[in-house]
Amino acid sequence: MNFCSQCGHPVHQAIPDGDDRLRDVCSFCGTIHYSNPVIVAGTLPVQGSRVLLCQRAIEPGYGLWTLPAGFMENGETTVEAALRETREEAGAQVQNAMLYTVLDIPRFNNVYMIFRSELEGDFSAGTESLDVALFDEKDIPWDQIAFETVRRTLKLFFEDRVHGHFPLHQDVIR
Amino acid sequence: MNFCSQCGHPVHQAIPDGDDRLRDVCSFCGTIHYSNPVIVAGTLPVQGSRVLLCQRAIEPGYGLWTLPAGFMENGETTVEAALRETREEAGAQVQNAMLYTVLDIPRFNNVYMIFRSELEGDFSAGTESLDVALFDEKDIPWDQIAFETVRRTLKLFFEDRVHGHFPLHQDVIR
Ligand SMILES: [Zn+2]
Ligand SMILES: [Zn+2]
Repeated sequence: MNFCSQCGHPVHQAIPDGDDRLRDVCSFCGTIHYSNPVIVAGTLPVQGSRVLLCQRAIEPGYGLWTLPAGFMENGETTVEAALRETREEAGAQVQNAMLYTVLDIPRFNNVYMIFRSELEGDFSAGTESLDVALFDEKDIPWDQIAFETVRRTLKLFFEDRVHGHFPLHQDVIR
Repeated sequence: MNFCSQCGHPVHQAIPDGDDRLRDVCSFCGTIHYSNPVIVAGTLPVQGSRVLLCQRAIEPGYGLWTLPAGFMENGETTVEAALRETREEAGAQVQNAMLYTVLDIPRFNNVYMIFRSELEGDFSAGTESLDVALFDEKDIPWDQIAFETVRRTLKLFFEDRVHGHFPLHQDVIR
């Protein structure tokens, strides 16, 4: 950030009174500008023995496979964000979404929240996907998974499925 | 937002290509400025039969009671944010923090993440607290709780404690 979004004057870095971190502070109007981590919400759509993956049509990870997920928007809930991304990227409806993995990536200031869910009916690639397909565990393209968050969530799911118990998992990706 | 934080020129509202929402777009450099929900991380510190609450020394809710919680910062994990807020507001150390409630407040673009935890040793009011104290269930000042997220988390905790089972709870506060 170079300029104040309120008044357009330059900002400088300073530790405000009562704070202990450098912030972008406006040199003119004094507004303190905060920057905070962003939630990435998505789903793990399951149908019978298979899970749905999307092949990315955009960078980063063009051509690699991922779960439908994206930035949560203002005005929506985490579940709504996850379902919207699933519609947009996979043309898919899901139900019974249950929070399954919460994965912090402090390096990128992201918090992933992935909801295990039941795929309902048909699906089709959205504009951000080259392809959308269902995979059995043995067919998962492990060397072509776009993100560690997705790899981690899939591994946990197949482990938990052995016992039929899917507790929330929280972890950090450094 | 009135001005572009990159170049200082005015922004206007527009729906960018491939998007379906109004964004703040710079009229000069074209930067699209996104705004996303913010995570509020905190703890429910438990010691024996009692829980720790903080009496707020700041608005909103001056004089009312709350759990230690605050905005997650860039570069930290959700657990680190919760533990930092607990140190800052309650002068308290906790351990075995387990994610317990995830509460969306879409009206305010907040997502609360409260971790059930075990209080270790002493505590003392930080600069944002008038007082910090331990409460048995029968002594909770229910009519002086600052936020619905805190009330909801406390209610769930006392209900779950009857059975000794504390699953994750996810809910929306409209
Ligand atoms: Zn300013
Ligand atoms: Zn600009």
